[in-house]
Amino acid sequence: MSTIKSKGKKIGILTAGGDCPGLNAAIRGVGKTAILEYGMEVYGFSSGYLGLINKEYRQLSERDLSGILTLGGTILGTSREKPYKNVDYDDYINSKPAQIVETYREIGLDALVCIGGNGTMKTAHKLQMEGLNVVALPKTIDNDVWGTDLTFGFDSAVQIAAEAIDRIHSTANSHKRIMVVEVMGHHAGWLTLYSGIAGGADMILIPEIPYKEKVIKKYLEHRYNEGKPYSIIIVAEGISIPRKSSGASATIRPAHYIAKLVTKLTGLEARETILGYIQRGGSPSPMDRILATRLGSYAADLIAREEFGTMAALEGDRIVARPLEEVAGKLKLVTEDLDLIRHARAIDTCFGDAY
Amino acid sequence: MSTIKSKGKKIGILTAGGDCPGLNAAIRGVGKTAILEYGMEVYGFSSGYLGLINKEYRQLSERDLSGILTLGGTILGTSREKPYKNVDYDDYINSKPAQIVETYREIGLDALVCIGGNGTMKTAHKLQMEGLNVVALPKTIDNDVWGTDLTFGFDSAVQIAAEAIDRIHSTANSHKRIMVVEVMGHHAGWLTLYSGIAGGADMILIPEIPYKEKVIKKYLEHRYNEGKPYSIIIVAEGISIPRKSSGASATIRPAHYIAKLVTKLTGLEARETILGYIQRGGSPSPMDRILATRLGSYAADLIAREEFGTMAALEGDRIVARPLEEVAGKLKLVTEDLDLIRHARAIDTCFGDAY
Amino acid sequence: MSTIKSKGKKIGILTAGGDCPGLNAAIRGVGKTAILEYGMEVYGFSSGYLGLINKEYRQLSERDLSGILTLGGTILGTSREKPYKNVDYDDYINSKPAQIVETYREIGLDALVCIGGNGTMKTAHKLQMEGLNVVALPKTIDNDVWGTDLTFGFDSAVQIAAEAIDRIHSTANSHKRIMVVEVMGHHAGWLTLYSGIAGGADMILIPEIPYKEKVIKKYLEHRYNEGKPYSIIIVAEGISIPRKSSGASATIRPAHYIAKLVTKLTGLEARETILGYIQRGGSPSPMDRILATRLGSYAADLIAREEFGTMAALEGDRIVARPLEEVAGKLKLVTEDLDLIRHARAIDTCFGDAY
Amino acid sequence: MSTIKSKGKKIGILTAGGDCPGLNAAIRGVGKTAILEYGMEVYGFSSGYLGLINKEYRQLSERDLSGILTLGGTILGTSREKPYKNVDYDDYINSKPAQIVETYREIGLDALVCIGGNGTMKTAHKLQMEGLNVVALPKTIDNDVWGTDLTFGFDSAVQIAAEAIDRIHSTANSHKRIMVVEVMGHHAGWLTLYSGIAGGADMILIPEIPYKEKVIKKYLEHRYNEGKPYSIIIVAEGISIPRKSSGASATIRPAHYIAKLVTKLTGLEARETILGYIQRGGSPSPMDRILATRLGSYAADLIAREEFGTMAALEGDRIVARPLEEVAGKLKLVTEDLDLIRHARAIDTCFGDAY
Repeated sequence: MSTIKSKGKKIGILTAGGDCPGLNAAIRGVGKTAILEYGMEVYGFSSGYLGLINKEYRQLSERDLSGILTLGGTILGTSREKPYKNVDYDDYINSKPAQIVETYREIGLDALVCIGGNGTMKTAHKLQMEGLNVVALPKTIDNDVWGTDLTFGFDSAVQIAAEAIDRIHSTANSHKRIMVVEVMGHHAGWLTLYSGIAGGADMILIPEIPYKEKVIKKYLEHRYNEGKPYSIIIVAEGISIPRKSSGASATIRPAHYIAKLVTKLTGLEARETILGYIQRGGSPSPMDRILATRLGSYAADLIAREEFGTMAALEGDRIVARPLEEVAGKLKLVTEDLDLIRHARAIDTCFGDAY
Repeated sequence: MSTIKSKGKKIGILTAGGDCPGLNAAIRGVGKTAILEYGMEVYGFSSGYLGLINKEYRQLSERDLSGILTLGGTILGTSREKPYKNVDYDDYINSKPAQIVETYREIGLDALVCIGGNGTMKTAHKLQMEGLNVVALPKTIDNDVWGTDLTFGFDSAVQIAAEAIDRIHSTANSHKRIMVVEVMGHHAGWLTLYSGIAGGADMILIPEIPYKEKVIKKYLEHRYNEGKPYSIIIVAEGISIPRKSSGASATIRPAHYIAKLVTKLTGLEARETILGYIQRGGSPSPMDRILATRLGSYAADLIAREEFGTMAALEGDRIVARPLEEVAGKLKLVTEDLDLIRHARAIDTCFGDAY
Repeated sequence: MSTIKSKGKKIGILTAGGDCPGLNAAIRGVGKTAILEYGMEVYGFSSGYLGLINKEYRQLSERDLSGILTLGGTILGTSREKPYKNVDYDDYINSKPAQIVETYREIGLDALVCIGGNGTMKTAHKLQMEGLNVVALPKTIDNDVWGTDLTFGFDSAVQIAAEAIDRIHSTANSHKRIMVVEVMGHHAGWLTLYSGIAGGADMILIPEIPYKEKVIKKYLEHRYNEGKPYSIIIVAEGISIPRKSSGASATIRPAHYIAKLVTKLTGLEARETILGYIQRGGSPSPMDRILATRLGSYAADLIAREEFGTMAALEGDRIVARPLEEVAGKLKLVTEDLDLIRHARAIDTCFGDAY
Repeated sequence: MSTIKSKGKKIGILTAGGDCPGLNAAIRGVGKTAILEYGMEVYGFSSGYLGLINKEYRQLSERDLSGILTLGGTILGTSREKPYKNVDYDDYINSKPAQIVETYREIGLDALVCIGGNGTMKTAHKLQMEGLNVVALPKTIDNDVWGTDLTFGFDSAVQIAAEAIDRIHSTANSHKRIMVVEVMGHHAGWLTLYSGIAGGADMILIPEIPYKEKVIKKYLEHRYNEGKPYSIIIVAEGISIPRKSSGASATIRPAHYIAKLVTKLTGLEARETILGYIQRGGSPSPMDRILATRLGSYAADLIAREEFGTMAALEGDRIVARPLEEVAGKLKLVTEDLDLIRHARAIDTCFGDAY
């Protein structure tokens, strides 16, 4: 498998964007394969693209990669640094992208592995255009990276959110209340949809399917009339709610808005829960560990085969390569999987658009 | 063990106040012991004291009690109904307490088992004063019932909160942020203290120990200077924060307030998470199942022995009876266990009062 | 979606073979879609094919299907009854298959949904050949049903086994021992492979890849010499081990055999753990709940569309139908996914065949 | 709190006997308090008493103790080395105890903290008799150390075992089988009793209560006749079973013996599961983290106060000191808590001795 010409190659790794479960498993997958299978040297950059800009990195040995498979977060640190934001093209030589290229050349890297979500894919693609050899890995609890069946981090987040919904059922039933649970996801409703179905939610509100107040009212009243004065509503943080009126400083959370709305529409008591950061932390689920390991190991393969400008992706049960230029800038939305929504409707889940 | 005179006795059970893990285990413990050991008849009231007021109840057979040990919530339902609130003593005969006494007499109950927290204990004691035979069981995730080493529900809540804090560590470390986690507890800091110590929190803020802004600032800056730009702060929902200024409608959450304060004081990035209702729901922990079972079973013993006006309580590793009149109206606060706080300080936990 | 001609159709459901997480989610998916979407009548048979033979069944209402999504096991019961085993074709009219056909006709069923593993698929196909209208759903923690990317039950079992391996690491490291963990799987190594990779196992032994003693010896000695006197070995229960010599009555478990072998070969201390039935029980994982729900709901679609003789299957992220005649009698083995094994090898996992 | 005379004191720590959850939390509790509160120097010995014999140790800094609270196992390693076994008193100067004393003197230790179970307490007491300053901490999943309400490790083990029993229920109910689960515990039945009650076991067999075959038969037949053809039986590994007859090499496990016995007595199908090492591994439960931290921190207090020859212990909700001479050599058995067994019987749990 290993080829002589890979031996001695130098590769860099970074993790960018929000942290999520499986980052360390991916770093380990890339690193172990690169070192053990191909004899490469591996350098880890600190805090995403910031580490490349600021030349903060260290070489990673096999020992550094040992025991991190099950660890949450990222041993490299991460940041939301977007090096192409506000670039002054009149002074490009001092720009962040130029600094990144300089760091890459200075170390003498043969390739750079960028692990991140949609934003990271865009930057990775631009760096490839600058002439760097880039391979990318899709991570995000949002599962909204185009070109892969799944991103790692998603399975863990679904478990955490679904377990939380399981718990919320107790209070809904015991107190006969409407419980509104807010799940992460600005643009895509995958996490909301999956955790909602897994948690047996009665109503699921996601950014891709606009809800109607009269449908919410009708559905909850129907349940009430059938002797079910409790309901579980799962909402994505990215659903559309009215902007706050003048003067008030605090942002209203979608869960809070929907809980108030439910009470206004139906008179039923409603309570909200916002799951927040627990969805992104902790030890990755077994399936995320496996997916991250496979994607990571495959990234090292792509470097050995010199297939740059690519993203490792899951297709069915295989790992494949996608051109970064196809992936960058696209978002995978729930509306692409109408089948799943249709089945959720069939078992009487309401999406707020029709009942 | 069983005595002939217990046979045929009729007892009622209700669960009142906020739901918590272990209520069904307690109902099962009371009911199975009453039926199998003493040959009593058991009646379950719906929705706490409301069921007694509205005569909503049903007889519980052994089969009804089977398979509920591990179930979250309460099969009887619960409510925050306080029958002694706003009683019109000029029209006492139509008051809720009078209705309760009537229901009790009408069914011909020999005793009533009230499962709840501090509010429930107060009502239970008043009903005992009215001439009913009452035995009470202490449940609450707040662990603030006076007279028992532990209340059931607490152990489960500590686990849920501690697991959430474990997860939050990932993001704190990966993003080098201050993470503020808000835990339930209006008056007592037990849940905050226990989950904070178990979760390795750096700072713990509870109602019983007033914090000082300058201490928060000094402690976090000290950590920053030692190369720890991340910290976990656990706050109880009942800590003192300034009331909102005029006009604004939404209440500010303590976690939000402290996160803002931290950024103001130190310039460090801070994020909040409010655990909310997940702390109260779901299957009880093994220790809560055991404690609830033992307390429940002991309540049936107390009825058989006609030791009324009592609360079953944990003392060391034994179950004992406490007079309701000693328990009612008292709150158990963290300041009673200075030892625990001292040890937490010794391993460098800051309570916001001194550093 | 619903078609008038589906209204009033009668369908039967059964769960056969070993129980696994997600069976109730599947029953609920079939039943709710059949009742709510298509207006069908649903009958549940007890204990797999036994219920059809013995005419033990009951009608399932929507209420019967409510609240079972998260429940382990199967509300219908199951059995390993194989109706086509030892059929006396001279007395076919009194055979079990004939009784099944009779029950089916007597109730006036329009279709039968068979939920099970490989054995169940074979029987389902034969019943289709008898003239019944059959739709099948693939469940098994072994993931070895041909024609579907995943079977439900597998994801839950991987989680349980991987969590167990996580725990075993503590003792391996603290005591510097070889820990051998035995995972279910007679013919296919999927569960062993997945839980082994997810659990960071050092060596994975599966039925599809024969191990060599000298490789085991060499690999463990190599680790020992590198300062790693502990190792985790995961073995499938179906790996080949020598048959017991004459006389002894108890069967030797593979884990026990490998632990003894390791000590014989290397002199290192070794201990075994057999995970056993915990791998099959308890609440299904969120992903299993979703997969079982989707497959179940799709089965009702297939009946409505009268596409009989089919198995609902996962392909990529879609649910599709496969002809039962293609599925029945085939086993999906790990050797079909050489990619996964290659990546596991790349991160230094030993499969006992080469090092 | 800290006293000047503690500053600069040197203390050693070791973990001995079987590993269990909470060891690292205890090491951290001792070490952080010793370093931060008292200004002591802390040395960690490798592999229990072996490290003292072989002079294998290293100084532990605050950084070494950071992040280990939630880690399973022990960062120091452990062993079952018993230094007082087979001591040649004619050549005492070369004996292991003499080597231990030499190491202690050589480093100039002021005190030694021994963390372990009953065996460790005995050795600790003997070392105290030799003139070393010893403080001990009680850890074991068996909970059988005399003089403390609880040992750390026990709560975690109860959770793991109870969760396993929860899972086993699925298969028992779905297949209508007797499921026999074997739990650790050679002499004391605490873990079996607690996990059995928490898991809703029908029958619990422990070393302290001898079972009768006819009671097992009668109880299971009674359940069968009541329409409950499934039962969960939890057995401790230390229950009495007949020794194997001549010739056979493999030891029979109690679970296997009881499963066979059940089938022989009742004709019912029975299956066994042996939980094994998963009971001892993995991240400690929150309550074990807290208990281990408190005991550890208190051990440092005892050293500062020069109260040697003591074991830190839990009494009610306080930490107290017990003289090692009272603790050493005694075993805490379930029969001391008749109350708990009485309540378990009251809810219809059978202990195999009477029904």
